[in-house]
Amino acid sequence: LKVNDITVKADNIVIATGSTPIVPEPWKAFGDRIMTTDDFFEQETLPESVAVIGLGVIGLELGQAMARLGVKVTGVDMTDILSGLSDPDINQQAREIIGKEFELWQGAPAELEEADGKIRVRAGDKEVIVDKVLAAMGRRPNLDRLKLENLGAPLDQYGVPEYDHATQRIGDTSVFIVGDADNEKPILHEAADDGKIAAFNILAGESTPFRRKTPLAITFTDPNIIQVGQCWNNLDQGNIIVGQIPMGPVGRALTKAKNRGLLKVYVEKNSGKLLGGAMIGVCGENIAHLLAWSVQQEKTVVDLLRMPFYHPVMEEALQGALRNALGQLEIDLPKYVEVEPLR
Amino acid sequence: LKVNDITVKADNIVIATGSTPIVPEPWKAFGDRIMTTDDFFEQETLPESVAVIGLGVIGLELGQAMARLGVKVTGVDMTDILSGLSDPDINQQAREIIGKEFELWQGAPAELEEADGKIRVRAGDKEVIVDKVLAAMGRRPNLDRLKLENLGAPLDQYGVPEYDHATQRIGDTSVFIVGDADNEKPILHEAADDGKIAAFNILAGESTPFRRKTPLAITFTDPNIIQVGQCWNNLDQGNIIVGQIPMGPVGRALTKAKNRGLLKVYVEKNSGKLLGGAMIGVCGENIAHLLAWSVQQEKTVVDLLRMPFYHPVMEEALQGALRNALGQLEIDLPKYVEVEPLR
Repeated sequence: LKVNDITVKADNIVIATGSTPIVPEPWKAFGDRIMTTDDFFEQETLPESVAVIGLGVIGLELGQAMARLGVKVTGVDMTDILSGLSDPDINQQAREIIGKEFELWQGAPAELEEADGKIRVRAGDKEVIVDKVLAAMGRRPNLDRLKLENLGAPLDQYGVPEYDHATQRIGDTSVFIVGDADNEKPILHEAADDGKIAAFNILAGESTPFRRKTPLAITFTDPNIIQVGQCWNNLDQGNIIVGQIPMGPVGRALTKAKNRGLLKVYVEKNSGKLLGGAMIGVCGENIAHLLAWSVQQEKTVVDLLRMPFYHPVMEEALQGALRNALGQLEIDLPKYVEVEPLR
Repeated sequence: LKVNDITVKADNIVIATGSTPIVPEPWKAFGDRIMTTDDFFEQETLPESVAVIGLGVIGLELGQAMARLGVKVTGVDMTDILSGLSDPDINQQAREIIGKEFELWQGAPAELEEADGKIRVRAGDKEVIVDKVLAAMGRRPNLDRLKLENLGAPLDQYGVPEYDHATQRIGDTSVFIVGDADNEKPILHEAADDGKIAAFNILAGESTPFRRKTPLAITFTDPNIIQVGQCWNNLDQGNIIVGQIPMGPVGRALTKAKNRGLLKVYVEKNSGKLLGGAMIGVCGENIAHLLAWSVQQEKTVVDLLRMPFYHPVMEEALQGALRNALGQLEIDLPKYVEVEPLR
């Protein structure tokens, strides 16, 4: 490893160079009128108007926060999808709920041009002039100066060398890649696991493959948006049933005056096993953990309906979705479902 | 079964007569100046001052609610215990946190006397004159006119005949007792299970015993108070270790500006199995479900630390308590703890 003029030799190397927000080259001419998540929290004042370009997790979270702080926010995304939601119903609910707080222009790319010290943003047939633009189109791994092609492993379009997700090792080299640098999931607990796995394998001098945790994504909007386990897009649609419940009548959501949204759970038709789920609703971050832990433990709808659900709690929404799924299952149900015989 | 002059014959009978708030006989002279949970929500106006007698779940919930609505509230309880908390540390935290919102007089019984249309409340060396008293000393089962002694089963001090908690059946009769009438836990999901179990056994013409759900108690104060699984009092203290974490530094509690409280988990020393826990803290109702489901599924500290914990969420408090427990466990830990090898 050569750093400037210094050559470093090591038995193993961990690439943990992180990532940088994506800002198209021509936009750099707008200077500090373009904000990214790297400098957003350094702003000393709030602008009067902002266009948020990119309506993934970060764009939605910061867009909603600014709208609630009185900023006139316009959200723009090339796709019809919010927060990476592959479930069309949850996505539609999110568009309706978030769309009440700030304008969402979806389906056309954003074009920026100078407008007397402000920025004119065009997307499709719409346009707006804003003080600042928040570039929230994701992050790219910081790999461009590392000459990783020298490792011999093929590089993908982002410059990430092919590596084993279960060991974090690049090919049969002694080089490991972890965290945002591997361009996988920019999520803290996954990055921490990347690091632990690389460290274990280096210290033990072996290549133990590790099980990755059940996918778990939370958007900290209000209400929360969650995706857990298998995404809608990746499900074998012929072999699943969907349990769902609208948040409207859920007691605990009503007492919080936040009874908006929808919860869906995806269940394997022939086994009753929970495969995943998605939700927009209050306490989504908590329901997400119950769902993810249940998926990781390979629990079935019947297993879960035998767990305690207090009243009135948001977990009753999950109970409702599971009951909805139960009625559609194509399995021989046990004689007693929601209570468990002792023998 | 004889109702007035009508005689009803049935193959089976289910006693589901519910319960009535306990009000000492002499207090009835105060008329509508004594409120109970049966008429609390019928009040058209809030009094200026209230004494809440009994600081169990209901006394704390309604006491705090009235205090926040501007009522001058004095809470009185014979014991030093709030919400039935058997864990002394969580109880002490609850006394400090709730005690900032309204006065808590603990350790002496309440005595009431007439005071010119108001009520003088004395407890130990303290006294206060209040507009109304909320009697929150619990509920007694509505069994006194049923002549249950005729069933032949011994009656306890509340008049509840001895019955099997796993079948809800009274002795070898065809009479079942369910819900508040059985004076067990006045909790909705437990009462629902009582009913299901009695119904199953009646309809199937059998006496299948059923597993009861892991104990789960939530007090809907802000922050929540929870008790899950085995209570502190019932633990074999020589065979457990306690993992704990104060809420002060928990990130998600900080972002909610509600970083007060404490979480404790009780773990079997020689197996690492989670036995129970208690907490006062924000989102306690959600953590309670993760805890209860984990206890019911007989999960160990290592099992649970392998589950995903997002950031920043309140579930990280549970992760912290589990990590605290891990360091004290007297078991041979696996080589890899928080990530799971695939083989």
